[in-house]
Amino acid sequence: MRSVSIIGIGQSAVGELWDRSARHIAYDAISAAMQDAGIETADALFLGNMLSGSLLEQEHLATLVADFCGLRGIEAAKVEAACASGAATLRIGTMAVASGMHDLVIVAGLEKMTDTVGKDTTAGLATASDAEYEALHGVSFVGLNALIMQRYMYEYNVPIDAFAGFSINAHRNGANNPNAMFQEAIDLDAYVKAPVIATPINIMDSSPICDGAAALILAPTEYVKEFTTSHHRGAVQILASASANDTLAVHDRRDPLFLEAAYVSSQKAYQQANVTPADIDLFELHDAFTIMSALSLEATGFARRGEGWRMAHEEQIGINGKLPLSTMGGLKSRGHPVGATGVYQVAEVVQQLTESAGANQVRNARIGMAQNIGGSGATIITHILGT
Amino acid sequence: MRSVSIIGIGQSAVGELWDRSARHIAYDAISAAMQDAGIETADALFLGNMLSGSLLEQEHLATLVADFCGLRGIEAAKVEAACASGAATLRIGTMAVASGMHDLVIVAGLEKMTDTVGKDTTAGLATASDAEYEALHGVSFVGLNALIMQRYMYEYNVPIDAFAGFSINAHRNGANNPNAMFQEAIDLDAYVKAPVIATPINIMDSSPICDGAAALILAPTEYVKEFTTSHHRGAVQILASASANDTLAVHDRRDPLFLEAAYVSSQKAYQQANVTPADIDLFELHDAFTIMSALSLEATGFARRGEGWRMAHEEQIGINGKLPLSTMGGLKSRGHPVGATGVYQVAEVVQQLTESAGANQVRNARIGMAQNIGGSGATIITHILGT
Repeated sequence: MRSVSIIGIGQSAVGELWDRSARHIAYDAISAAMQDAGIETADALFLGNMLSGSLLEQEHLATLVADFCGLRGIEAAKVEAACASGAATLRIGTMAVASGMHDLVIVAGLEKMTDTVGKDTTAGLATASDAEYEALHGVSFVGLNALIMQRYMYEYNVPIDAFAGFSINAHRNGANNPNAMFQEAIDLDAYVKAPVIATPINIMDSSPICDGAAALILAPTEYVKEFTTSHHRGAVQILASASANDTLAVHDRRDPLFLEAAYVSSQKAYQQANVTPADIDLFELHDAFTIMSALSLEATGFARRGEGWRMAHEEQIGINGKLPLSTMGGLKSRGHPVGATGVYQVAEVVQQLTESAGANQVRNARIGMAQNIGGSGATIITHILGT
Repeated sequence: MRSVSIIGIGQSAVGELWDRSARHIAYDAISAAMQDAGIETADALFLGNMLSGSLLEQEHLATLVADFCGLRGIEAAKVEAACASGAATLRIGTMAVASGMHDLVIVAGLEKMTDTVGKDTTAGLATASDAEYEALHGVSFVGLNALIMQRYMYEYNVPIDAFAGFSINAHRNGANNPNAMFQEAIDLDAYVKAPVIATPINIMDSSPICDGAAALILAPTEYVKEFTTSHHRGAVQILASASANDTLAVHDRRDPLFLEAAYVSSQKAYQQANVTPADIDLFELHDAFTIMSALSLEATGFARRGEGWRMAHEEQIGINGKLPLSTMGGLKSRGHPVGATGVYQVAEVVQQLTESAGANQVRNARIGMAQNIGGSGATIITHILGT
């Protein structure tokens, strides 16, 4: 198996991009990544996306984007795993290069969730849950997460503002990310006064609906020097890539408060990279809701069961903390364009490992981890990168 | 790169399966394939599907199906490339095994197109074309193919019933396939009298809307013996796998009568397998419309430009002909559950190469080819298999 490296990254702005259609947003990210890597074509484009069928009436999306980017004659396919589509796509791009079937692969993620005429984005997001056993009964995606959060607070006797630190940290970091949807810090007062959207989840616990695209250029590690130009930021190696699933429906799990798939995929990743949690210099976790941050930290080996929320303080998770989280704003502040999120996370880890994270640079960052969650924990994918 | 083999196949019945939901249909195919291979679990499930987002309000489909099949803890992702989703998924499964990242991979295709409450399947299929530059103007998918067929008939001065032989051949073969949607032969009279659905395409030129699922089990060729049981049909090796794209919109092509992506992907496949068209013992082509059969034969090296239609006779394409086509009924008679079609094609090639094709067995079949087309030729994927 060939070792695989990331030789370029690109990101579109995240937000309500009313003046950009899906193909334009994808072009912004892909052209930036190709320029960053110093390449003019590629062998394949794998594109993570969840909602183009239900919200945009557009399938065949990867070929559409490849065509629009001038990449004709190459392989193109869309990959979908709900909100974990981005990382699922990175895994497939990694397989393509690792197998030797391709040398230069573009891995992109794209979501256009606003400006969808006559479509209901909340209903679209509910397609990540079981249409026949969850969505049919009217539960929305935020509703499922609210049930999990409520149970967590009851089971471990946790006060509601215990989760505030995750949101405050994300906004503090997002304020310095020019691509972030929300570029302003918030304080505890803003969190406490935030409107509740599904008890106990308030708007500051929850990531926003938005548009965005991100892209990575993959190449065999052995060829990295060949692609390196004088402007090159330096390549980052994919040390580990692991995916695991769980029951789609939350009610089918033995324990709704333990992310079994996060445990399995992170353990596999630690083994592949030959590291332990203590070796991780920063962690881009899937903070779609603050409760997911707590559960991820617990299942991934950074906190004991029921104690993930205790890490929600600057000295723990800030840029200069023990384990910096959501260093460019995370899903909460950078934004959560669902099919693109997993690719943004990895692009941000690359920024950190190549000292391109600006004001949010984590000092001496050598090993970074990204974890992307699909549904309410049904698909969880962990990547570990290193220089 | 590890060589990859197919060690088991499974197919659901194809048709209007009113009493089976999507997950049940997938289960039928996957459990049959696992039984055929003699395995009880796998490392990953890659699932080809085009329309679950737009027709079923269900994404996260691969994890849903894995969960329903009792495959928890494994990797699962859905792959979409319009009507070429099935073959695109096989490519990704092949990469997973070839790279060494997985040993046992399930590649499945699934589509549920009937019984979709409140949804328009024709509009769903149009999402394979460009939503903003084709579908928005009201052209349906059959309409695009009708424009291509009309142009072909004009350009090469071809009479309308010249295409009948493709349809007659497909129905003749489908009559012996217990999984086929249409299990009865038709004659020229039935073709000539068939209702026109978009001039000049009549209902006998066109594949049906239907439900179905098919599955393949992949393993490294070097491990094949290990998985072989006494009931095993024998493994088939993937000798070549190649994908190419073209412009999504037909109006952007230099020549709408030449399937550039079929040419590119078939040439790559011949090179990988080290064969020429003369070595191919049977060809499962993408006969979604009879015009596509003619164009595929031309771009893939079996007929000269403008002469693909001349092959539409039993002595050429019948089971005992020079190049047997659609040997189990093809898209026309077996049916075209879009995301599953590419997987059915390959499963049928495996049937032929392992002498399991019953009354439709092609004698001495050693090398078989399958070609899956997405959109009106925008994504074309070619596989060559051998024993």
